[in-house]
Amino acid sequence: MSNEKMVKSITSMEEDFAKWYTDVVLKAELVDYSSVRGCLIIRPYGYAIWENIQKLLNERFVETGHENVYMPLFIPESLLQKEKDHVEGFAPEVAWVTHGGNEKLEERMCVRPTSETLFCEHYANIVHSYRDLPKLYNQWCSVVRWEKTTRPFLRSREFLWQEGHTIHATAEEAKAETIQMLDVYADFVEQCLAIPVIKGQKTEKERFAGAEATYTIEALMHDGKALQSGTSHYFGDGFARAFGIQYADKDNQLTYPHQTSWGVSTRLIGAIIMAHGDDNGLVLPPAIAPKQVVVIPIAAHKAGVTEKATELYERLKKIARASIDLSEQSPGWKFAEYEMKGVPLRVEIGPKDIEQGQCVVVRRDNREKTFVKLDELEEKIPMLLKAVQDGLYQKALARRETMTYQATTMEEMIKTAQEKPGFIKAMWCGSRECEDALKEKAGVSSRCIPFEQEQIADRCVCCGKPAAKMLYWGKAY
Amino acid sequence: MSNEKMVKSITSMEEDFAKWYTDVVLKAELVDYSSVRGCLIIRPYGYAIWENIQKLLNERFVETGHENVYMPLFIPESLLQKEKDHVEGFAPEVAWVTHGGNEKLEERMCVRPTSETLFCEHYANIVHSYRDLPKLYNQWCSVVRWEKTTRPFLRSREFLWQEGHTIHATAEEAKAETIQMLDVYADFVEQCLAIPVIKGQKTEKERFAGAEATYTIEALMHDGKALQSGTSHYFGDGFARAFGIQYADKDNQLTYPHQTSWGVSTRLIGAIIMAHGDDNGLVLPPAIAPKQVVVIPIAAHKAGVTEKATELYERLKKIARASIDLSEQSPGWKFAEYEMKGVPLRVEIGPKDIEQGQCVVVRRDNREKTFVKLDELEEKIPMLLKAVQDGLYQKALARRETMTYQATTMEEMIKTAQEKPGFIKAMWCGSRECEDALKEKAGVSSRCIPFEQEQIADRCVCCGKPAAKMLYWGKAY
Repeated sequence: MSNEKMVKSITSMEEDFAKWYTDVVLKAELVDYSSVRGCLIIRPYGYAIWENIQKLLNERFVETGHENVYMPLFIPESLLQKEKDHVEGFAPEVAWVTHGGNEKLEERMCVRPTSETLFCEHYANIVHSYRDLPKLYNQWCSVVRWEKTTRPFLRSREFLWQEGHTIHATAEEAKAETIQMLDVYADFVEQCLAIPVIKGQKTEKERFAGAEATYTIEALMHDGKALQSGTSHYFGDGFARAFGIQYADKDNQLTYPHQTSWGVSTRLIGAIIMAHGDDNGLVLPPAIAPKQVVVIPIAAHKAGVTEKATELYERLKKIARASIDLSEQSPGWKFAEYEMKGVPLRVEIGPKDIEQGQCVVVRRDNREKTFVKLDELEEKIPMLLKAVQDGLYQKALARRETMTYQATTMEEMIKTAQEKPGFIKAMWCGSRECEDALKEKAGVSSRCIPFEQEQIADRCVCCGKPAAKMLYWGKAY
Repeated sequence: MSNEKMVKSITSMEEDFAKWYTDVVLKAELVDYSSVRGCLIIRPYGYAIWENIQKLLNERFVETGHENVYMPLFIPESLLQKEKDHVEGFAPEVAWVTHGGNEKLEERMCVRPTSETLFCEHYANIVHSYRDLPKLYNQWCSVVRWEKTTRPFLRSREFLWQEGHTIHATAEEAKAETIQMLDVYADFVEQCLAIPVIKGQKTEKERFAGAEATYTIEALMHDGKALQSGTSHYFGDGFARAFGIQYADKDNQLTYPHQTSWGVSTRLIGAIIMAHGDDNGLVLPPAIAPKQVVVIPIAAHKAGVTEKATELYERLKKIARASIDLSEQSPGWKFAEYEMKGVPLRVEIGPKDIEQGQCVVVRRDNREKTFVKLDELEEKIPMLLKAVQDGLYQKALARRETMTYQATTMEEMIKTAQEKPGFIKAMWCGSRECEDALKEKAGVSSRCIPFEQEQIADRCVCCGKPAAKMLYWGKAY
């Protein structure tokens, strides 16, 4: 048995994108399958990415005045049923608990698919006066939706997420919160995950169960499919009425408050993989990479190499999430391994480099090599990390621009959807009929009504009636 | 309706300790009840304490080489049944999921009561060679145990915890890990929560289901009852055999690895409340207090007071978790409110103080007042926080010492257990019969066989046969 592990190989993107994706999540050791179909094991490397996402998002939530809480895992059936649209949306896909130990429960409970009903019940208990408002709460937890088909991170029966739930005195405040949190998401996904997004509103058909308005950030994946990456909902006072939440305003009048909810999930890890990955594996943006730099000694058996590599590692630790690989594997094996894991920078150092007082830094995103003088390490590494972060964003943006098309007729729509993976911009009259027809005939769903509107035609791409709005359409995960 | 909220009042400890406890958890706004009996809502103030506990513990886990992962919420019945003792221990108290959406599941699943079985299944997948060992994993999550009687934080049907699960090449390594993590817990609880603990081993009767040895840290609460505050289990290779986990050792021989698990939960918040609280409410150790200092202006309507208070707050924010209360409530109301919430230091500043270039700092733990010169704030506040932290520990230690008794005869045991709440040290022959008899006749359970043994008699307190060990006995939560 050789001491050298096999270099891992994966299916190429071109050949089979779905298979490439599964290969990456497994070979980069992000997840493992469990015996519970559709539920994942998130391994240390995958969970470390989630922890970085949590940390950066949570800072933004705290800055905008939000507080974390924890609600029960279970929702009694009667509570789930209190808001009509909400229960219709979720009841068909929840997991039901019917027994506690050996006893049958008097009322069955579902495992939370989302927690609006629990927050509403709590708000009814603690909100009495205008002085109690707003409440700006967030929860980090797992939720369960009993999906028929599942894919790691993108659609699983259990997934990790955060769900913000806020309650406000006025509709204006609640609306402002809804948009603020969409902006927080967009900013985070663009700045930290290096993925450009389209901000917009969902159509009524795609709206969250029980919401008056749903806003979304939509990202484009490598294969031209859209990924809904975060949503923010405005509820008006619908839930407050259903749950009897009222407060005494300044004139002591009982009034219904207005609510929002918003969430992102481990789906974002799927977005990172499919927005930046390549045929060598994962490519991680430095902002959320568990390891930003890995030091690999070359010809480590030669005198002084391991010592020098360790010295570099000790220096790098102070300015980045650095690691070092002193194992007996060959440099070639290590290069492949850390490429698979998407580590943004690799620092190579061998006898010749030491002689010349330098090291070799290789970027994961474009394999660009830079010789860095050892005394400039602390200056150059952060610059290179920033270059990778910016480079990933620019590359993803350019790809999205190239893969965004327009259609003004149904013929064009069908042809583009068939031949050109990507977003399609097209005008829409506003009717559900046309939205359904586009799904049926062109296989595309409405992604969003973008905030940045363009008048690309006067008439609906489907029915030819006067158009109300320009929408993004596409195939989606 | 007055603008002044009612000052909250609570039952005194003397009058009814259980009622005092419930009053504190509700009035300090740590929790709220939900419609799911036995499941709690952890409110922002309670959750912030848990986040501080998580942060400090997680740092210690990372320092000792552990990695976080996330396992599924559900365990198929067949998987739970793989280890005989384990399933016997947990099956009677799990919540069963029987339906997904409208369909009956082929095999029912329980909501995890603990995740040994899931980790074992994963280890069987990923551990093949001695090079794959050890795996030092930890998970932060919620678990469910369908208890009959519940109390906030102390025993609830769902609770938050961390569960460490490690797997090692040798029994020695696994044993060392078990003890290391018990030490991490003991150090954390003593240093950060300011609660002294007794470290020791559980008797066979009190052992975790499936473990070869269970170690515990036991703390004494204000009412003289013991609280098991953290446990660490050594499994030997029992689970590995049950789950078929084997690795090729250096000689390429298939070998069973050895495992551990260890956990602490939101129970620690119950420990903080009952170890330090008083008739004015919560008393929080500064290390985990969400707010360490609160600034309260006195006669805030007078010129310059609000400005000066705000200035102090801005300075304090840089050295502590500080807050300021500029609301219209009276100072008296505010004093009571922050005492209820256990904020370690209160900083009062009024016109006279400003004139004299000072402020008044009041300790929550002993109400000691200190006049602090404004230009010494940055020096004195950290000293006072440290004094509170140390003071709480010393007070809890002194109380435990006063409330620890000895018994050498059964008569003494029964009398002490009846009359003197606290720990009772007594010798034990090692038999289950005597342990059961002590429970039945004196109402005490064995808390632990402490690492620090004392030879307080030669014979078992119950049967009079030669004694094997000295144990701590007591009534427990």
